[in-house]
Amino acid sequence: MTMEVTLQKFKELLGEVMDAQATVALLQWDEEVNMPPKGAPARGRQLATLSKWVHRTFTSEEMGRYIEELLDARDRLEPDDAVLVAETHHDYQRQRKLPPDFIERFAEARSHAYQAWVEARETSDFSVFLPHLETLVALLRQKADYIGYEDAAYDALLAGYERGMTTRRLKSLFADLGPRQSALLHRILNASHPQDFAWLRQEWNEEAQWAVTLHMLRDMGYDFDAGRQDRSVHPFTTNFDVHDVRITTRTHPRELFSAITGSLHEGGHALYEQGFLEKDRRTLLAQAPSLGIHESQSRLWENTIGRSLPFWKHYAPLLRAHFPGQLDDVSPEAIFRAVNRVRPSLIRVEADECTYNLHIILRFEIETALIEGVMQPAEVPDAWNARMKALLDIDVPNDAHGCLQDIHWSHGEMGYFASYALGNLYAAQLFEKMLEDIPGLWNHVEHAQFQPVLTWLREKVHHVGRRKRAAEIIREVTGREPGAEAFLRYLEQKFFPLYGIPTTEAGIGA
Amino acid sequence: MTMEVTLQKFKELLGEVMDAQATVALLQWDEEVNMPPKGAPARGRQLATLSKWVHRTFTSEEMGRYIEELLDARDRLEPDDAVLVAETHHDYQRQRKLPPDFIERFAEARSHAYQAWVEARETSDFSVFLPHLETLVALLRQKADYIGYEDAAYDALLAGYERGMTTRRLKSLFADLGPRQSALLHRILNASHPQDFAWLRQEWNEEAQWAVTLHMLRDMGYDFDAGRQDRSVHPFTTNFDVHDVRITTRTHPRELFSAITGSLHEGGHALYEQGFLEKDRRTLLAQAPSLGIHESQSRLWENTIGRSLPFWKHYAPLLRAHFPGQLDDVSPEAIFRAVNRVRPSLIRVEADECTYNLHIILRFEIETALIEGVMQPAEVPDAWNARMKALLDIDVPNDAHGCLQDIHWSHGEMGYFASYALGNLYAAQLFEKMLEDIPGLWNHVEHAQFQPVLTWLREKVHHVGRRKRAAEIIREVTGREPGAEAFLRYLEQKFFPLYGIPTTEAGIGA
Repeated sequence: MTMEVTLQKFKELLGEVMDAQATVALLQWDEEVNMPPKGAPARGRQLATLSKWVHRTFTSEEMGRYIEELLDARDRLEPDDAVLVAETHHDYQRQRKLPPDFIERFAEARSHAYQAWVEARETSDFSVFLPHLETLVALLRQKADYIGYEDAAYDALLAGYERGMTTRRLKSLFADLGPRQSALLHRILNASHPQDFAWLRQEWNEEAQWAVTLHMLRDMGYDFDAGRQDRSVHPFTTNFDVHDVRITTRTHPRELFSAITGSLHEGGHALYEQGFLEKDRRTLLAQAPSLGIHESQSRLWENTIGRSLPFWKHYAPLLRAHFPGQLDDVSPEAIFRAVNRVRPSLIRVEADECTYNLHIILRFEIETALIEGVMQPAEVPDAWNARMKALLDIDVPNDAHGCLQDIHWSHGEMGYFASYALGNLYAAQLFEKMLEDIPGLWNHVEHAQFQPVLTWLREKVHHVGRRKRAAEIIREVTGREPGAEAFLRYLEQKFFPLYGIPTTEAGIGA
Repeated sequence: MTMEVTLQKFKELLGEVMDAQATVALLQWDEEVNMPPKGAPARGRQLATLSKWVHRTFTSEEMGRYIEELLDARDRLEPDDAVLVAETHHDYQRQRKLPPDFIERFAEARSHAYQAWVEARETSDFSVFLPHLETLVALLRQKADYIGYEDAAYDALLAGYERGMTTRRLKSLFADLGPRQSALLHRILNASHPQDFAWLRQEWNEEAQWAVTLHMLRDMGYDFDAGRQDRSVHPFTTNFDVHDVRITTRTHPRELFSAITGSLHEGGHALYEQGFLEKDRRTLLAQAPSLGIHESQSRLWENTIGRSLPFWKHYAPLLRAHFPGQLDDVSPEAIFRAVNRVRPSLIRVEADECTYNLHIILRFEIETALIEGVMQPAEVPDAWNARMKALLDIDVPNDAHGCLQDIHWSHGEMGYFASYALGNLYAAQLFEKMLEDIPGLWNHVEHAQFQPVLTWLREKVHHVGRRKRAAEIIREVTGREPGAEAFLRYLEQKFFPLYGIPTTEAGIGA
């Protein structure tokens, strides 16, 4: 075969894999959004079959031959094709390293662990989950061995979510970030500040909440001809194509801001996925290089922009119009304070910007200790509770509100959490640079003119797809290594004025 | 391999095919119900890939080996397993007969023909569609040759929808049915009868229409924990499992009954699919033996029950409650007359029970003449218009309202339409027997007690799945061959009293 024919056959086979992967995503989306309850067992089988077919085709000898031939001819490939082949080679090798019987054992262990976790959390009984956690940790260590690593076994797991990042680097990053963010938090908690959140305790019409989220998503630039918003228990974003990117959110009558912040968050993810290049469709290039970069997009829209004062100067009237009589005396500043209330809490997904990373650091410490074998699964509850006390000064009343709160471990996922913290750090670094590049950015935000923000993100991040690694993007866009400085500056400049603490620099977004 | 191991491997492979086929159905359902418009091109590719994977796996050498081994061991198989192997063998052979390059050429021709048909119908210009119809007819004749037939090429096409039925049998059936139904129609049209349908010309709240359909579906026994109703342009039923059977309907503010009759129709299909046996899941046995039998279920609920006077004696108050002030002076009898208005019309999908089969007979005559080569595609419009005049005494103003109205031919589907008429005939035969078997059936209907009807259908039809052919079911349940007598009796007994025409027997449902 000529190189051209091989390239075409390679792209067609990869395209089929991507088609089938999009179909898996549709099966999952439908499961969360539409599926009647009795459909669950059949859906489980459909997902298992399709995942198996995807894996078999992607790791096939045929795919291997194409990759090999194209790697040999890499000097004659167009740059985009060369990157595509290299990226596919990377994923191909990673997936081929796991023997089919290991994948099967792992899937079975996950399935049992998930069911045990559901029961353990309901009854707050860690002992129900413990044997499964032991099995999963053993399997994860085995997985790391299959994949291979230079320095730490945990590196092999990290690579599945945050490629290029190392355990050593994260340990040093979090060793710096943890104490500094904790100190900053305690300055805020010790500050005296106005505390009038009584107006939040009202009933908020859920249809009105929904309408507000749609309005904001449209303003952000989310294309409803290439997406839709639905309701689900846990908000998420998924895509079946660059022109079919769907988000979900949830409304609650007692929570004014949970649907809004949820939609802004998922909207940030969705704008990223709607922003991949059309020419990258059906290839691995229309993907984020890491979960951390993906999360930087959601955090930037939800937190940096969506919890800023200029944002609420614009949207306070919209809220008032949708909740007539309920917000007449509530100023944009009051909303700004409400959406930035700092309150250490037990639950990660409810954490504010000042405490969130501390929840992550705790999980990272436990995960690495488990994989390194210096902590046993049975020790997790005590370790969890001790670190919650140290980092957030909170007593954990039971394991359901402690080490059993997250679904991730029951799914056999370790190495995932760090990406959430990295998302915060990346977002702050990107935003600092954006502020330099876009004159009058906050003025644009105050008029809901988000096009400059979106255009900047499209150019610097979205269009890149998987052509570069996360660290490379941050380095090239900001001129700095990924790090904690920008995020800590951001917290200080936003929260110190809010809580009446003197700061030397002008506040950002305040 | 022992026979047991082969059987298990066979069922697992077939199960995977069924899982993937359910996934294809989900891709299609989502396309009609949820997909944002820009998602269409990607969806087309996903459907093509998944269909290809399904076909490849189902027609694989591996599947062939299992079938062969199990056929050799058929005497030692459980009866259900023996039927399953035989049915799978049937489909396997049929699909293997078409060479892959033919399937590809056919798919391409269909795709072009569909696009041409959309344009031809919009502009009512048959010449745009003609070359594509010529290509498709040639390909369909070739398909018939690949599949093979004894008597008529059209038999090979029929077998894809109405297995066991022959062209010869249908010709003789329709030669009898056509003139008799036409004569019956003309007696009705010549009768003088009350014509007060002015009350229908109101605006009907669409949410209220929706609520009425949900109420009726629940009463029928449709399990909303194993299904759901959504909106789509063209109502349809689909299933991803016996416990995930979904229907769609459409509301229109000027049409009181289109959503209701649509939901009853799809609800009939859905009750059938929710009624397949759980043990048949993931096999070909959880399927209808023919489209005609499937259609008999929808027609029975929509027409025989849903357009009966007892039905409306029960539901008239529900309608009044949902449309306050709009139906105060409208009696159940007036509704009964309205949903049974006989009015020859141009469009098949809007046809009443007295004219519907005539639309089908016209199409059957043209299709068989095309496949037999005694009519050329260019002659279709004239033939269509002449038969519309003869059968329904209607002048066709243009081809968009004539031979271009149906999507089927543009999809390369011939042999399909007869099933719609057979559905009417089967429904009438089944219902006659049901009336004998269930004492006080109409009294049950008048109290919306549909359990006896559903139980009867479950036992006689639904639970059978694909274990028997259509004709076998009709024969075993009713003691008669499939035929037109019961349907003609049904029409006469229902419509003659409605239109003041003397009849010798007591009216059914009137």
